[in-house]
Amino acid sequence: MLEALKEKVFRANMKLVEAGLVILTWGNASGIDRSKGLMVIKPSGVDYDELSPEKMVVVDLNGNVLEGGLRPSSDTPTHIVLYRNFEGIGGIVHTHSTWATAWAQSRSPIPSLGTTHADHFHNEIPCTRLLREEETEENYEMNTGRVIVETFASKDYFSTPGVLVAGHAPFTWGKNLDDAVNNSVVLEEVARMAFLTKMLKSDVETLPAHIIDKHYSRKHGKNAYYGQKKAPGDAPDR
Amino acid sequence: MLEALKEKVFRANMKLVEAGLVILTWGNASGIDRSKGLMVIKPSGVDYDELSPEKMVVVDLNGNVLEGGLRPSSDTPTHIVLYRNFEGIGGIVHTHSTWATAWAQSRSPIPSLGTTHADHFHNEIPCTRLLREEETEENYEMNTGRVIVETFASKDYFSTPGVLVAGHAPFTWGKNLDDAVNNSVVLEEVARMAFLTKMLKSDVETLPAHIIDKHYSRKHGKNAYYGQKKAPGDAPDR
Amino acid sequence: MLEALKEKVFRANMKLVEAGLVILTWGNASGIDRSKGLMVIKPSGVDYDELSPEKMVVVDLNGNVLEGGLRPSSDTPTHIVLYRNFEGIGGIVHTHSTWATAWAQSRSPIPSLGTTHADHFHNEIPCTRLLREEETEENYEMNTGRVIVETFASKDYFSTPGVLVAGHAPFTWGKNLDDAVNNSVVLEEVARMAFLTKMLKSDVETLPAHIIDKHYSRKHGKNAYYGQKKAPGDAPDR
Amino acid sequence: MLEALKEKVFRANMKLVEAGLVILTWGNASGIDRSKGLMVIKPSGVDYDELSPEKMVVVDLNGNVLEGGLRPSSDTPTHIVLYRNFEGIGGIVHTHSTWATAWAQSRSPIPSLGTTHADHFHNEIPCTRLLREEETEENYEMNTGRVIVETFASKDYFSTPGVLVAGHAPFTWGKNLDDAVNNSVVLEEVARMAFLTKMLKSDVETLPAHIIDKHYSRKHGKNAYYGQKKAPGDAPDR
Repeated sequence: MLEALKEKVFRANMKLVEAGLVILTWGNASGIDRSKGLMVIKPSGVDYDELSPEKMVVVDLNGNVLEGGLRPSSDTPTHIVLYRNFEGIGGIVHTHSTWATAWAQSRSPIPSLGTTHADHFHNEIPCTRLLREEETEENYEMNTGRVIVETFASKDYFSTPGVLVAGHAPFTWGKNLDDAVNNSVVLEEVARMAFLTKMLKSDVETLPAHIIDKHYSRKHGKNAYYGQKKAPGDAPDR
Repeated sequence: MLEALKEKVFRANMKLVEAGLVILTWGNASGIDRSKGLMVIKPSGVDYDELSPEKMVVVDLNGNVLEGGLRPSSDTPTHIVLYRNFEGIGGIVHTHSTWATAWAQSRSPIPSLGTTHADHFHNEIPCTRLLREEETEENYEMNTGRVIVETFASKDYFSTPGVLVAGHAPFTWGKNLDDAVNNSVVLEEVARMAFLTKMLKSDVETLPAHIIDKHYSRKHGKNAYYGQKKAPGDAPDR
Repeated sequence: MLEALKEKVFRANMKLVEAGLVILTWGNASGIDRSKGLMVIKPSGVDYDELSPEKMVVVDLNGNVLEGGLRPSSDTPTHIVLYRNFEGIGGIVHTHSTWATAWAQSRSPIPSLGTTHADHFHNEIPCTRLLREEETEENYEMNTGRVIVETFASKDYFSTPGVLVAGHAPFTWGKNLDDAVNNSVVLEEVARMAFLTKMLKSDVETLPAHIIDKHYSRKHGKNAYYGQKKAPGDAPDR
Repeated sequence: MLEALKEKVFRANMKLVEAGLVILTWGNASGIDRSKGLMVIKPSGVDYDELSPEKMVVVDLNGNVLEGGLRPSSDTPTHIVLYRNFEGIGGIVHTHSTWATAWAQSRSPIPSLGTTHADHFHNEIPCTRLLREEETEENYEMNTGRVIVETFASKDYFSTPGVLVAGHAPFTWGKNLDDAVNNSVVLEEVARMAFLTKMLKSDVETLPAHIIDKHYSRKHGKNAYYGQKKAPGDAPDR
């Protein structure tokens, strides 16, 4: 069942370790088959060197485990809320990567300070509010998803494919799982560069809008000219 | 004698090097056989690439070397005091890992600023007071253990499995040696994240208690739901 | 066509990855054959593990692609402006290396604070102004080259073989491509050292001119005495 | 001639690269044969991957090259001054390692903030004054040695086996070359820890003298008890 997706989800999880974004059992990646309404996600608390494609867990969007002898990631309800609300996304990544997590712990968005940021995230990477006590007691992981959706009430999740959960850590997503993984790599590097920039100049200003828009549109949308020409029918470039 | 434990202690010491927590001959790990009242510890000042399981030293809780042609770690008396006072622990790790040591040198506890911290250490990671002159002159390493125990007089060593020794460096422990090693990995990463967070926002507040408690109890205690179900009889999850 | 140069350009691009200066598809290196007036550059947006010498793109100094089935780097017009204006250079490197990019995002030059800097860059590494809105709308990459040239109106591009583009990232160059790559390695390290120095002492002063000049002339020019004697006819040492 | 020493000096130079203390051609290590009054040093400006034991250069303490087809390191006169003045030392290492160089560029000594420091350097690691213009014009490298010696006029070079040259970078030494290399590894780590500590607490105080002395004497001198027992006739422990 969904063998190709399990393989992809397995590889995405391993790539997070290789990229230095995950240590111990921290972090998880999932992918969705939109036609079947099923997602595949990493099992909870299993060491990365014991993972394999067949250990990935198949879950429907009500949280029922359909296949797999292991419990799915404890963050599964967060993934479900995101898949239900951000309908264009095909993959989600959660890490506790060092620099992005430091921003999340400072409860501040990451401002767009350079073209590295603007090439991938159209504007600042937002930070949610802290969850309230009643949101923590029950359905905590589901409420984590809801506060992310709330944060994007007036933002475009497609051009800003990631978020910091206050006091916790980042989530990223993408039109497919490869993009979600890449966005987690970019987010970590952008978080690091923004940190260093703030240390050098605490009152640094956001990049002017005309440069932000230029860089974002070089890589995304119908006038994008970065990269190689796509064949007709290709998915739109992220 | 205690061949299995020697193998475990050897592997734990090597893992500290692999995890980047130890350079040169800095750091040491030990494990205890509670039924026999004996501990196994790394020899003093031996290069890691010359270590082997049979070079591990067997010591009783009075400090007598029972087996092994090499001197035990000079920090052996500290380990003994901890084993005597923290009766639930099965392993101890001491490193001079960079970020945790910087906090120890600043003589400040590491505040709980995020869920990464709260997942593993229930509250702040405390810092001892400096040792007084008379505590330094004689039985220095034993007094290092005593000041750690003093620091935990009103704290739970099980839910806070680590400490910073002021002006020195961290110690961690766990119900077994694997947990003690993992806790040293977590402590270093949590120290780094807390450092970066303080740089971004010097007056950052501790995570609210309801989030701290939620995350700690997700992973620990009878209502833990992180990870895979344990077989009956398994040790309680850390 | 230009097979030897393609091989060199390919290797230079790979070296940027090995040196940790480039992740994902960020960054590009080019080399020029001055006798033919042709440059060779990395294709746009191609993963580094799919690169090979034959995928390098040959472009003339009007931007026409003469060979290669792939689009050249989107930064090609910047390289062309630099080759046209800095006639002594044989290679150009562009990266988004972390520490140099942080300085670029802070929109500040990197001051010469030590002999590591002075050994390779005679004085501060300048930072351009931000591009204006009208410079961004059309010919953005060409204007990026022009603002670099403007920044060097009263500076010597040969003794200061690199620049920070404000809000963007660094470019380096050299009399040949190997030197350009080395200069990007040095720039990143010098950026890191200068950052750390500023953190330690925010009002640190520039190295005195007599030490700057001594170190630069130890390695460069007719009285250089660093390194091994050159055979007659060798290119002047960088 | 001095084949064993050449092998040692070669290996020491390579170890600096492996330990991450040296990039490009920065840095050099030398060793001395006191009975013959000859030193062996790395050649100047040769890539590390082209080094071999036979390329090491033999120099007498007047600076005459006695063997080797290559020029010795341009820092050779500095090494000579140190060997002439610090008679107990057998090896010298010079690097531009990142964190130690940042301290040198800030022109500040590294204070003794913890036991990691005190285990290896008895007190603060001093920083020289800047060289004056007339000291730079001629015999610059010899004067670099002299300003180091001047800095140790009232200090013990044996218990403080390293120095920061202001605006430049560190030198370390030891009773033999292995110790000199180890001291350069320790200096870099101690520099990093002290940097981080200062960021956490700008007014942090030096470790109390009774702890400094305890840690230093645990590892050094006739009452040292760290490490394994030495055979009679062994060199005193560093």
